[in-house]
Amino acid sequence: MKKVGIIMGSDSDLNVMSKAFPVLESLGIGFEAHVYSAHRTPVQAAAFASDARENGFGVIIAGAGMSAALAGVLAAHTTLPVIGVPLKSAVLEGTDALLSTVMMPPGIPVASVAIDGAKNAAWLAAQILAVDDAQLAEKLAEERRAMTENVLAKDEALQKKLQENG
Amino acid sequence: MKKVGIIMGSDSDLNVMSKAFPVLESLGIGFEAHVYSAHRTPVQAAAFASDARENGFGVIIAGAGMSAALAGVLAAHTTLPVIGVPLKSAVLEGTDALLSTVMMPPGIPVASVAIDGAKNAAWLAAQILAVDDAQLAEKLAEERRAMTENVLAKDEALQKKLQENG
Amino acid sequence: MKKVGIIMGSDSDLNVMSKAFPVLESLGIGFEAHVYSAHRTPVQAAAFASDARENGFGVIIAGAGMSAALAGVLAAHTTLPVIGVPLKSAVLEGTDALLSTVMMPPGIPVASVAIDGAKNAAWLAAQILAVDDAQLAEKLAEERRAMTENVLAKDEALQKKLQENG
Amino acid sequence: MKKVGIIMGSDSDLNVMSKAFPVLESLGIGFEAHVYSAHRTPVQAAAFASDARENGFGVIIAGAGMSAALAGVLAAHTTLPVIGVPLKSAVLEGTDALLSTVMMPPGIPVASVAIDGAKNAAWLAAQILAVDDAQLAEKLAEERRAMTENVLAKDEALQKKLQENG
Amino acid sequence: MKKVGIIMGSDSDLNVMSKAFPVLESLGIGFEAHVYSAHRTPVQAAAFASDARENGFGVIIAGAGMSAALAGVLAAHTTLPVIGVPLKSAVLEGTDALLSTVMMPPGIPVASVAIDGAKNAAWLAAQILAVDDAQLAEKLAEERRAMTENVLAKDEALQKKLQENG
Amino acid sequence: MKKVGIIMGSDSDLNVMSKAFPVLESLGIGFEAHVYSAHRTPVQAAAFASDARENGFGVIIAGAGMSAALAGVLAAHTTLPVIGVPLKSAVLEGTDALLSTVMMPPGIPVASVAIDGAKNAAWLAAQILAVDDAQLAEKLAEERRAMTENVLAKDEALQKKLQENG
Amino acid sequence: MKKVGIIMGSDSDLNVMSKAFPVLESLGIGFEAHVYSAHRTPVQAAAFASDARENGFGVIIAGAGMSAALAGVLAAHTTLPVIGVPLKSAVLEGTDALLSTVMMPPGIPVASVAIDGAKNAAWLAAQILAVDDAQLAEKLAEERRAMTENVLAKDEALQKKLQENG
Amino acid sequence: MKKVGIIMGSDSDLNVMSKAFPVLESLGIGFEAHVYSAHRTPVQAAAFASDARENGFGVIIAGAGMSAALAGVLAAHTTLPVIGVPLKSAVLEGTDALLSTVMMPPGIPVASVAIDGAKNAAWLAAQILAVDDAQLAEKLAEERRAMTENVLAKDEALQKKLQENG
Repeated sequence: MKKVGIIMGSDSDLNVMSKAFPVLESLGIGFEAHVYSAHRTPVQAAAFASDARENGFGVIIAGAGMSAALAGVLAAHTTLPVIGVPLKSAVLEGTDALLSTVMMPPGIPVASVAIDGAKNAAWLAAQILAVDDAQLAEKLAEERRAMTENVLAKDEALQKKLQENG
Repeated sequence: MKKVGIIMGSDSDLNVMSKAFPVLESLGIGFEAHVYSAHRTPVQAAAFASDARENGFGVIIAGAGMSAALAGVLAAHTTLPVIGVPLKSAVLEGTDALLSTVMMPPGIPVASVAIDGAKNAAWLAAQILAVDDAQLAEKLAEERRAMTENVLAKDEALQKKLQENG
Repeated sequence: MKKVGIIMGSDSDLNVMSKAFPVLESLGIGFEAHVYSAHRTPVQAAAFASDARENGFGVIIAGAGMSAALAGVLAAHTTLPVIGVPLKSAVLEGTDALLSTVMMPPGIPVASVAIDGAKNAAWLAAQILAVDDAQLAEKLAEERRAMTENVLAKDEALQKKLQENG
Repeated sequence: MKKVGIIMGSDSDLNVMSKAFPVLESLGIGFEAHVYSAHRTPVQAAAFASDARENGFGVIIAGAGMSAALAGVLAAHTTLPVIGVPLKSAVLEGTDALLSTVMMPPGIPVASVAIDGAKNAAWLAAQILAVDDAQLAEKLAEERRAMTENVLAKDEALQKKLQENG
Repeated sequence: MKKVGIIMGSDSDLNVMSKAFPVLESLGIGFEAHVYSAHRTPVQAAAFASDARENGFGVIIAGAGMSAALAGVLAAHTTLPVIGVPLKSAVLEGTDALLSTVMMPPGIPVASVAIDGAKNAAWLAAQILAVDDAQLAEKLAEERRAMTENVLAKDEALQKKLQENG
Repeated sequence: MKKVGIIMGSDSDLNVMSKAFPVLESLGIGFEAHVYSAHRTPVQAAAFASDARENGFGVIIAGAGMSAALAGVLAAHTTLPVIGVPLKSAVLEGTDALLSTVMMPPGIPVASVAIDGAKNAAWLAAQILAVDDAQLAEKLAEERRAMTENVLAKDEALQKKLQENG
Repeated sequence: MKKVGIIMGSDSDLNVMSKAFPVLESLGIGFEAHVYSAHRTPVQAAAFASDARENGFGVIIAGAGMSAALAGVLAAHTTLPVIGVPLKSAVLEGTDALLSTVMMPPGIPVASVAIDGAKNAAWLAAQILAVDDAQLAEKLAEERRAMTENVLAKDEALQKKLQENG
Repeated sequence: MKKVGIIMGSDSDLNVMSKAFPVLESLGIGFEAHVYSAHRTPVQAAAFASDARENGFGVIIAGAGMSAALAGVLAAHTTLPVIGVPLKSAVLEGTDALLSTVMMPPGIPVASVAIDGAKNAAWLAAQILAVDDAQLAEKLAEERRAMTENVLAKDEALQKKLQENG
């Protein structure tokens, strides 16, 4: 199976971006994570993206805050799907990163997920890899069923609580 | 090769969403387009998503404006990658649709592209289908080279124009 | 009297949504509360809404954050009035949920109250049930008079405080 | 059946607010429409709301732009459900009116619909009146089925069009 | 000299609105402060504004948050200048109150100051009362000179600090 | 009676700012209008404000767009009340000018009216001049009564229209 | 004297960006203009910036819309001052480009001017080149005096117009 | 070498603005810092800017929050490049200061950096001074190489950490 590349613009983004790791691990998907900045290490970022397909990657996840150019810069150097995770920083509630990530020009798409949505970036990467992988698709279907169970269990817990109080 | 499903919430969205058609056609990717509304035909929308993988679809593109629930509702019924196209409507410049599309809860990702970004939704769909398809990947690489040529040709035209004026 | 259904997308919404409970209790209005997610339990959410009128509900209150599709999804499956409570989450101050909740397409209305406005959702539900219930209408009028008294008592307390300081 | 009161802050709001009229007429719901301003005729606006229940009204719809105080002012003088329609004016895309309409303090709810959403205000009013009116509820259910048919007809038209082009 | 009326929509607004008190006291301007809500005590709020000129008030300051209708409602019942103080509440950073306060329709102006700007509301009220009061105008000019001195003293302190560190 | 000074940052602002003229003329209030820019003629702008009280002005109205510094700069050089009119320009719907105008630091207030609210700036100026002028106050009260009549006449016209259609 | 490099992401940006040309020409500053896209010709954009100092450039102006990565990408490859011009596109009023341009990470600054502010980018470039160029500085001072004269001439024209009407 | 002038509107801005100091010190660039307010000490602020070039300054950095007029006011009195630092204050996340700083009228540019971006203002000032200073340019190039090394070192640390955990 293809690997997922997770690139973040700064190691201070790790506390959010690392939420992608257990999702991929639970699905048995291999990944590499790197700190490459669009602005401070543009050469290394471009090189990673240019060689990604050849190096066995199937999807790239890029997390960055503020003027979040990272996902777009990576997308400019590869035709692999690039998922952008706009990160909330000290000001503006992440709207700056969201707009920078999502408003890409025609021909160079970035797939944006929610602000700080590293977990969903991992799920989306898995869903992309499962397009042609029936076994992974089945694992994802199981996870969905588990999510449903989980919500219903919480509903049951609420019913119990309401009955006790009422 | 897997097909792409293009769903729009209203037939008035066709003028934007149809920009995805020629991109897919130029790459030889099959697609189906449907008008299904998350709010007016919830049953049909859910059915389409539930059966999409089985029916040979690899990616779903969903375009909707305002409280753009369509992409999320489709995503809730499939583990195929769902790409959301937030559409600009008469008010709010498309920010309503952008936030509704992108801010999905953990486990049910939507891949948002730019407001009115139907063309990029098609490119992203193609990039997803190309993850395991070397031939399609090569076509995409060619298209990228063509884009580069195109920009450089425009730069040359500008140089000529400036020289004539200067 | 008809019951009120209170649906929330996650049990983490309970700390806000439970503010609706004492309002309804004080007015003697029966209610049920459930955790159903538009994206993780779409089938159960739809089923609840579809059967709500038949099951004795008169109004549905739906609380959800981010891409708050829940109110709209419930509204799509019933013609009972659905009141949406946009919930503030970790980013964007609740504007995402507000726009997702309120910007519904023609024919499928959602009645939005303020961000985190679960209390007012309960008052609004009561006002709806009181349209044809003179006794409940009188209770609501009494509550309004009590609110007025309460503000005037606080004004009096302020006058006392200002006199002591001045 | 109870009537619906439709109040607008200025006669220039009539082009949007009058979209509510045919919805109510098609459902056989009586209504009155008035131009009363929260700021220029506060006494008349308050009087209308205060006497509305007694005068046979079941729901009040209030449309206003900019600092849209009208819905809140009416809500302050009645315990009938008040539906606010935030109107887009020359600047700010209607966000000013949306926030003014929806962000009401606890105890005095306003049910906000979308910006310029006069049509949905009428549908919501009808749904409120149908809570205790089985006949009206059945009419609404029929209308929903017609909406569904209408979307499916548009999908069929799209299929035909795509086949002809393809 | 005319008095200043300070009205706030809730006693929880006192911690911000009371910042106006010492400004007025330092200038020898009499004032009254009241808790009157546009939505919970509309009659008392309207009565205060209607009688304000007759009762010796020259300016009214109104502080309110969220759907901040208070300043506009007071302005509707008087031709005295009304200064609105938009208050920040738990969500939306005060933008809701700012837009509600400032976007008034032609003929019924409200003079908005900054979000949480109760202090400046007091300064503005004093400047209004000083239009025809040479003595108060002179006091205000003195205060301005003191502000200038104060900034220059802080600059001097900074110079000292920089020299010590440098 | 004191005069009103109307300052605008550019002569392209005249089409909005001139809406203040007939309001003042109808009330018999003298005014002067000038084009002074905070950034291009800072010396002249400061000089106008510094001498305004001495030159018989009672209120200054300042209209400017974008980084609307004009009102604040004038306020820095006078203790007369300064009314700011944030002007909508080609981008951002006037939010830039609104925030620049209203968010003044403590001690130097600006009284902001609505975006493009030149008319209300004139009404507010008149209300300020009427604080100590019973005759002007009476004129304003008459104007308010006329506004009320005007709205009620429009309501009557609507009733007639509805009856004819109904 | 050093030249100014003007880079735009697309030739459709020329109608805005070309407003910089006459400013530079009037000051006798040499410039080159190019169409290089951060996403479609990343290699050429990087190469231009990397060699810019050596090629006799003193300042780079970069104009781009939406996810405006261009200025930042150029800044990443040079230590020359880079001025970003956020361009308004079909949606979002240019806020997307403004935030993408200005919110740069520490160490890689971009000097943002106003949305569509190509003219000011040219003025700023000139001011930067004039830091060590007394002759250019004198030209700029003359231009400023001309701007002042121009505003005062417009004020005079307004006075004449008002007298004729009054 | 020319000096950098750092002006802040209040001494409470020092905690952010002082982040510019070590950057300049590390590059051997002289600077002066002052507390001058556009609104409370307009005369001193204007005087500083007017005399700055003559007094040996090459660049001015101005930090201010809310209605951040300071940078523009300084720019109005000098043709030196003025860098604006929009400061986040208690409300609105710094958007007010960003728009006030960046949206300058043609002819009087301000170079805006990110909200609270005092560090980048210093880097930008250095880059401006380095346009004609080969030695400083070389220092900046070294700093950039160090930034690159630093990111790569963090990437290495991440690889180590992942290997230990994996």
